[in-house]
Amino acid sequence: MKEKFAVGIDVGGTTTKFGIVNKSGEILEQARIPSNEHEYVGDFIDHLHSMLSPMIDNVGGIKNMVGIGMGAPNANFYSGTIEHAPNLRWKGIIPVARLMKEKFGIVTSITNDSNAAAMGEMMYGACKGNKHFITITLGTGVGSGIIIDGKIVLGHDGFAGELGHTIIRPGGRLHKTTGLRGSLEAYASATGVRDTAIELLTKYPEQPSLLRDYSINELTSETVYNCAMQGDTVANEIFEFTGQILGESLANFIMFSSPSAIVLFGGLTKAGNLLLNPTRRHMEANLLPIFKDKVKLIFSQLKESDAAILGASALVWE
Amino acid sequence: MKEKFAVGIDVGGTTTKFGIVNKSGEILEQARIPSNEHEYVGDFIDHLHSMLSPMIDNVGGIKNMVGIGMGAPNANFYSGTIEHAPNLRWKGIIPVARLMKEKFGIVTSITNDSNAAAMGEMMYGACKGNKHFITITLGTGVGSGIIIDGKIVLGHDGFAGELGHTIIRPGGRLHKTTGLRGSLEAYASATGVRDTAIELLTKYPEQPSLLRDYSINELTSETVYNCAMQGDTVANEIFEFTGQILGESLANFIMFSSPSAIVLFGGLTKAGNLLLNPTRRHMEANLLPIFKDKVKLIFSQLKESDAAILGASALVWE
Repeated sequence: MKEKFAVGIDVGGTTTKFGIVNKSGEILEQARIPSNEHEYVGDFIDHLHSMLSPMIDNVGGIKNMVGIGMGAPNANFYSGTIEHAPNLRWKGIIPVARLMKEKFGIVTSITNDSNAAAMGEMMYGACKGNKHFITITLGTGVGSGIIIDGKIVLGHDGFAGELGHTIIRPGGRLHKTTGLRGSLEAYASATGVRDTAIELLTKYPEQPSLLRDYSINELTSETVYNCAMQGDTVANEIFEFTGQILGESLANFIMFSSPSAIVLFGGLTKAGNLLLNPTRRHMEANLLPIFKDKVKLIFSQLKESDAAILGASALVWE
Repeated sequence: MKEKFAVGIDVGGTTTKFGIVNKSGEILEQARIPSNEHEYVGDFIDHLHSMLSPMIDNVGGIKNMVGIGMGAPNANFYSGTIEHAPNLRWKGIIPVARLMKEKFGIVTSITNDSNAAAMGEMMYGACKGNKHFITITLGTGVGSGIIIDGKIVLGHDGFAGELGHTIIRPGGRLHKTTGLRGSLEAYASATGVRDTAIELLTKYPEQPSLLRDYSINELTSETVYNCAMQGDTVANEIFEFTGQILGESLANFIMFSSPSAIVLFGGLTKAGNLLLNPTRRHMEANLLPIFKDKVKLIFSQLKESDAAILGASALVWE
């Protein structure tokens, strides 16, 4: 039997990355194009096709491909459409799966990038073969993908799994994009960490901190990490607080779907144990006894640069 | 083709109810025995068998039965066992599905009563044919059953769906049985409503209220309802607050699994719109736009006296 391959495409707000992936999760070839260079989505797909065709030919042509998987903002698996994505140029409802299939001649499945990340973990990553887990992406925002019985949870309309927008501090910090107060994303994202830093520095004006030497723009999670590693009290409290919020939220998610693992992914995870330890402590403290010490809390093992392509490609393997 | 029937058994802390159910959800015969009269579970099952055998004969004998469904505390669908149920007499891990099958000669499926309630709604109730919904039972405690893709969510170990224990007010009211703080059950249960009444009456000592004429034991959700209907300010605020907590929690559940409906069941729902209106308002206010005005929030249409037997029986229909 000939080896089969999948195309993985990750449509981000700025860049679209794509590549050819084998069943072991190796990316044989990859490239990227800007996402918003083309006014019409048809031109964007033509561009993709011109770039991918030689890659597909290099692995024996279209007959060796199982399909195309695509992760994209506001992508709906059921309808195959991208719906009103705020950071893409094509407005309204774009039937991208159908357009791709017409151009490439093979089946295309789409979902949002967070769901694709979860599929990638199940197919190639830390949760290979696991049928009950949740991935949480801690980046600019907080994304999530939920796997139950080996399937991604999509809900009645395809929009399930928005755990970053669940409320963990009712009436708490304003999340500017959504207008919600006290959502997980308002705290456990890159922006959230910066806001926590500003809050704590303002709350304790007398407390010396290395963080006071940085401008607001420089107060990234990386800066906070570096200061925390130098023993800075405020920086350590920022991770303690972020871990508390995240841990409490994870406890709630566990009592919903009883996963055997939670995989953390994204920029904030570079903080390692500084984030993991308080998260685990607060997660365990808020669980019913029946769930305690059962759920593995781990970091993704996928390379961040590959994960988006891998996750998208995972949509089309049987 | 001969009409088929299912046995439904609901094992409660005090009473076990059981009956013969047809596919339309009619209970043809039913009876009850005490749950904790028998020291050995085998004697309990013998008692059940002696009561159910004539009922089964009345519908044509065992060959017309599709199986036995049982709802019981701490019942695990995967293993068929009741595990360390605090309010039952049989301690440890009881292989009740196997024992039942040996005695009756037909397949027995078990799950906890909240999951059974959800199965009942899908098979016979307000969510007939719906594949994506959540039931919330607002009784002495808060139970939940989650349906995704037409299947009950059990998780990796069979214990998923403990939404009553999710935290909605971190650091909030102590839930005495679990030691958790700020869980949904600490507020939106019969006990929770009483605690809210006491809190508000203590917080506003100058505020006149009909509720002050009742002893603490008399401060049931029914008393609060009656006072609220007479225009009592404190009583109305109790439902407003309970609805706020419940609505915020429901918003979080919706952003997890994107159900098309949430069914409320149990004693507190007798408060009708007094509870439903604030719940819906706070639920909608905490949803992302993509989920707003899409989720039906309804009361169960199953008779409370029948629901437990119906729900259990729903486990065994294909």
